[in-house]
Order: sequence, then C-alpha cells, then structure tokens
Amino acid sequence: MTRRLAYLGPSGTFSEQAALLYDETAQLIPFPSIPAVAAAVDSGMADEGVVAIENSIEGSVTDTVDLLIHESKVLIRKELVLPIEHRLLAKPGTDVSKVKVIFSHPQALAQCRRFIERCFPKVDVVAALSNAAAVEEMMASSQPAAAIGTERAAQIYGADTLAKGIQDQASNVTRFVVLALKDNPPTGFDKTSLCFSFAEDHPGVLCGVLQEFAERNINLAKVESRPSKESLGRYIFLVDLEGHREDPVVSEALAGVRKKTSMFKILGSYPRYEGE
Amino acid sequence: MTRRLAYLGPSGTFSEQAALLYDETAQLIPFPSIPAVAAAVDSGMADEGVVAIENSIEGSVTDTVDLLIHESKVLIRKELVLPIEHRLLAKPGTDVSKVKVIFSHPQALAQCRRFIERCFPKVDVVAALSNAAAVEEMMASSQPAAAIGTERAAQIYGADTLAKGIQDQASNVTRFVVLALKDNPPTGFDKTSLCFSFAEDHPGVLCGVLQEFAERNINLAKVESRPSKESLGRYIFLVDLEGHREDPVVSEALAGVRKKTSMFKILGSYPRYEGE
Repeated sequence: MTRRLAYLGPSGTFSEQAALLYDETAQLIPFPSIPAVAAAVDSGMADEGVVAIENSIEGSVTDTVDLLIHESKVLIRKELVLPIEHRLLAKPGTDVSKVKVIFSHPQALAQCRRFIERCFPKVDVVAALSNAAAVEEMMASSQPAAAIGTERAAQIYGADTLAKGIQDQASNVTRFVVLALKDNPPTGFDKTSLCFSFAEDHPGVLCGVLQEFAERNINLAKVESRPSKESLGRYIFLVDLEGHREDPVVSEALAGVRKKTSMFKILGSYPRYEGE
Repeated sequence: MTRRLAYLGPSGTFSEQAALLYDETAQLIPFPSIPAVAAAVDSGMADEGVVAIENSIEGSVTDTVDLLIHESKVLIRKELVLPIEHRLLAKPGTDVSKVKVIFSHPQALAQCRRFIERCFPKVDVVAALSNAAAVEEMMASSQPAAAIGTERAAQIYGADTLAKGIQDQASNVTRFVVLALKDNPPTGFDKTSLCFSFAEDHPGVLCGVLQEFAERNINLAKVESRPSKESLGRYIFLVDLEGHREDPVVSEALAGVRKKTSMFKILGSYPRYEGE
C-alpha cells in the first residue's frame, strides 16, 4: 500500500525534498505548519510525517522540538540528512543587473546574507513565509525581481536559475525526522532521543543525569536545553544518545535517569543516519 | 555625558523598550540587525548596545548567542528582563468586524496564535520584518487592517489599541543583555556567561566540565548547545553560572574548565537580574 506522508508544504520546500528522499513512491500530503503535520499523523490522516529538526548553521527547529516535548504522542521513527542548496531564481529572461527586489524566507536570507550583500547591495529584500512562497511571489511580481529558492521550486514555478549554491557556508545540511505512532525496532546502529526536567534546581542535577550515560560508556550525540515555557531559568533538557532504548545498557541508564528527573519522555529510538 | 546606546530598530520595537528601561536618558541609536548593534559597540560608534538574548517561550535568540560565540569582542555588562505584551492595533475608527488582514512579525504571530485563530479565523495574515514594521504597513494598508504591535509602536504611528495582552501565555518575558567593551565588576550578586567546545567527543566530556561547577557548589542558571557551524553533531556549549569570574571559587572552576576544553571564551560577568 502506498504510504501517506505528511510534510510542511507547499510543494517546492526542502521538507518536500526530504519526504521524496525518504520515499519517492509515497503519496505526499502538504500541511501548512509543523503542528499540523504531527496532528495528521496523530489522527491517522497520514501514516508518517517528515519535519525538519535541526540545521547545521541555525541549530534546532524549535517548533519541532517543542512539539515533541509538549504536545504530541508521535515518536521519531527515522532520521534523514539533506544538503541545503539555495539558488537565486528569476523569471525567464530577467536581466540580473535590473533586479530591484529579492523575495526570500528570512532563514534562507540569513544563510545567503554575504552573497546578497556583495552581489545585490542595493536591492529591497521582501520576506516570504516559505522558500516556495518566495518563488511564487517573485513570479507574480511586476518589478524586475529574484527569489532565493530551491531547484524543485524552480521546476514547479517555471523559474530560471541565475546562481547556484549561494549559501554562505558550503557545509549546510538539515536533519529531518520521520514521525510516526511507533518508533523503530533495534537495528544495532541506533540513536535514542529523550527529554527530561528537574523539579528542583541545584548544583549537579544535570551532571547526575549525564553520569548515568557516561559511566555506562554511552555517547551523547546532543545535549540541548529548551525553555519550560513557565518562566525564564526553568529548562527542559533534550538528549540524543547512541543506542536503542531496548539495548540492555541503555535501558538501565534510562531507568536511572527516570528516577532522577521529574518529567521524563522518550521521543523515540531509530536508525542512526549513516553519513554522520 | 550622555550614553550612546545602540539597539535593534526601528523605533517601536521591544528592543527600544528595553533600551529605555536600561537608561531613559541615553541617546538611542537604531541599527538594522543584531550584528550591526555589536559592530557599533565594537567600533566605538556607540558606548553600549542592547540586544535580546532569550525569550521565555521561544528560547534563545540565536543571532545574539552566535554573535557572542563566533564574531564579536563585546562582552555582556548587564541583563534586563522585559515583560512582552502584544497588542492588536488599527487605524483610528477601524471597525473590528471588517478587518480583512493582520500584519505581524512571525514570532509575534506565533505568540498570539490562539487569540488570532479564535477572534479572526478568516483574516489573511501578512508577515512583517519587525513588530514596528507590522504597524507601519498596517497604517499604510488600503484594506481594513490590524497589526500585532507594541504600546510604543501605537504611539509612534498614531494607531489605536483594539486589544491588550493578546499573547497566548501570560508569563511571556524576554531577557536582554547590554553589550560593551568591558563587563561589570563584582557586585556580590552576579552571573557569568561562558562558552566552550571539545576537540574530541567521547562519553563524559561534558559531564567532566559540569563537575568542575557541581563540586564547588556553583549553580548553573543555563546549559545550552549551539551548532559549531562545521557539521551536524559538533556543538558549542553555553553555560550561565551564578557568581563572578573574579570570585575565587568561580575563577578556580573556570581554570579547570579551560584545561578540559579546546575552545573556551568568557562572555562576561554582570549583575544578576533581581526579579529572577
């Protein structure tokens, strides 16, 4: 049966590229927000959903992280890593020297700031709500315009590529996760994501938890703090560790962590991305 | 002499409110970006600069954090906490029931989503580049429009307040920091921010550093990881601790941390905000 795969639309975004990378035979269903993708999976409208969780330059996608912590029952079933290549697109026949306005999602603009400042020091930059919307608005613009967009958006909207690989840092990749109602069985090369918080804040509480992993020789791929949303200075910690929650040594460490924390939630065990 | 105080403009933003909270007699100089504020301080164009570093709902302002880590010589000299109150503004005489479009900075919209979905389920939302720009664009709109903005923006642009305190979470505060070429001398009630990274990643390296603080009973107000910008899975850790870098016990712990890390940078010692 064809997999129904929810993603953050519209068509032409990096999320769509990640969804195609995961399963190019899937039925792709665009949703307008990351919480909507999770709700589609939660409710059975989609079998799985693909959302960005971390960019190598920008850091965590906080919408996704906060959703996994606070709001959703869905688990991480797989991770994918997609190279991010930004292109400068324009209507066919556009004269580069006449471009007056550039449409861009603010995050894409931040990643291409040096290129834009050097090559287009005097153009107006207009914020768009997605990389695909930037291209759509550029195509509809009455002024000579360009947009920062993806190869796929160029295909969809019939735009020409003026420049490729315009991001400031060549090594720009985004990690996506596949969300589902169940995580993945052990494969021998896995990763587990979890979050926890403490009822009381005193010196050494975090260290006490990290020791549960260190003394069992479990490597941490990531440690991150997010605001608890209650007040400044109250945090929820996120940890990615190497291993599966069903591995005996990991399972033992997790039981130790559960005892030392007030809130504790496993976000899923899943195969580690092999390129990392 | 009047203090020359750089902030993230334009006039009417929360950053301007924070700058006024810090020193209402200062000469306020707006800059178009957070790196520009830091560059103004670095170069002597301004004596100090005020930038947001953390919101209780959204988490860290990554532009500020990354700038302190990677790019700037400026130090943190003081912290300020500002309650964030969003308002719905419109041109005087606007009929609420006829509003067709709402202008908003995407982050402000995210913080007021529930209010907007309930009260304006059918309006178009247009993204603006700042809370002040949202109000300016609303005032210039030919359609019946509203904007999410601040009390100060309402004054500046001559808008009426349709609704106050429209943010979803009542306890919404932003922490700002004052940047300067020197940090602050010890006051007895201080905080120190630092960042560090490891050349090699193996189980227990982070725990080893945190132990330097735990065994000296130094409380950590914050532990955060940011991407190193080199590749996924390489992180720089940020720590806020209670105490001044010149306090003997803190100084000893910092010397221990310096030995255990490859990159190590103190971002400043400054008086702790008293309301926290």
